[in-house]
Amino acid sequence: MPEPIEFYFDFSSPYGYLAAEQIDALAARHGRAVDWRPMLLGVVFKDTGSQPLLNIPLKGDYARHDLARSARLIGVPFLIPEVFPFMSVAAARAYYWLYDQDQQKAVDLAKALYREAFGKGRDIASAKAVIGVCDALGIDGEAVAAALKDPAVKQRLREEVEAAIAKGVFGSPLMIVDGEVFWGHDRLDQLGLWLDRGGW
Amino acid sequence: MPEPIEFYFDFSSPYGYLAAEQIDALAARHGRAVDWRPMLLGVVFKDTGSQPLLNIPLKGDYARHDLARSARLIGVPFLIPEVFPFMSVAAARAYYWLYDQDQQKAVDLAKALYREAFGKGRDIASAKAVIGVCDALGIDGEAVAAALKDPAVKQRLREEVEAAIAKGVFGSPLMIVDGEVFWGHDRLDQLGLWLDRGGW
Repeated sequence: MPEPIEFYFDFSSPYGYLAAEQIDALAARHGRAVDWRPMLLGVVFKDTGSQPLLNIPLKGDYARHDLARSARLIGVPFLIPEVFPFMSVAAARAYYWLYDQDQQKAVDLAKALYREAFGKGRDIASAKAVIGVCDALGIDGEAVAAALKDPAVKQRLREEVEAAIAKGVFGSPLMIVDGEVFWGHDRLDQLGLWLDRGGW
Repeated sequence: MPEPIEFYFDFSSPYGYLAAEQIDALAARHGRAVDWRPMLLGVVFKDTGSQPLLNIPLKGDYARHDLARSARLIGVPFLIPEVFPFMSVAAARAYYWLYDQDQQKAVDLAKALYREAFGKGRDIASAKAVIGVCDALGIDGEAVAAALKDPAVKQRLREEVEAAIAKGVFGSPLMIVDGEVFWGHDRLDQLGLWLDRGGW
């Protein structure tokens, strides 16, 4: 069984959303699974000194245009939430809490959270919003609310982010396949070719 | 006759080199010409507060890997010059000086300069190096040497850079086709699709 594609992303990353809409199908075409690993880009940016792309003069305006154009090209809805960038820590905590119980359900939650934020342009920053998305998937809201305040769950995410940084993850989305790193939604094509050819 | 593709680039931009190796063939497949417009990214970066990608922690290392991998994929030689980033002002001045005499020859010079820098990893920052590349193309070295010091040639480049900034150019390579902006070597695919479909 070949290694899964490691898929690192931040729930507040719009290009991460676009990749999330395509990565499972791409992996399935090559007989691969996907290991979904949300992380916190804000912590990573402390190391690289970067700032969110959409905040950079000129590049930010272009990125908004490029995101909408790329979303139309792949046929998915796209909106930037009113509050942006937003905190993705609650979403990521909920993900890993659920992941430790049911990995497939955690991936369903990740997709639902991303669609809430960048498909519908709604808030997913607050605990309340994350609990609402969980509710709609039949995940017990009270249990989620408790988990989001649980020190063990907070620690779990901290360790995941540290592990991602230790692995050299510096952006979102970032994919690793057989040790080869591809950064950006615009590198899914090369990732697919890499799987087709076994590298080049 | 359809509008040419406007191709903005900095001679010190390695992704610009990769795009330069592909843009003419891509344009020709769609019955378009290419308008080659070198500019100075350092001046643009003053406005956007960016710094050269290869200097950014983690992202810089990734970019070196990604550049080499992308070059292998498209089948062109690739090396980063020993001194990098480097000043591209002499190369850009020589380009516009020649452009005003012979546009096709100026494009040949642009390709030769890029190949010298990123195909062979050699210096193209100094006037001497630029003159050497001109000599090899049969362009009179003494005339180039004089042009590089000519205040009118310096002013010509200044105006080109200002015009690029006024047009919203913020990166290299950056392509404009029928008013639509595509930034990055990794957007040549979408640019080609845009020409295929007349937009989407």
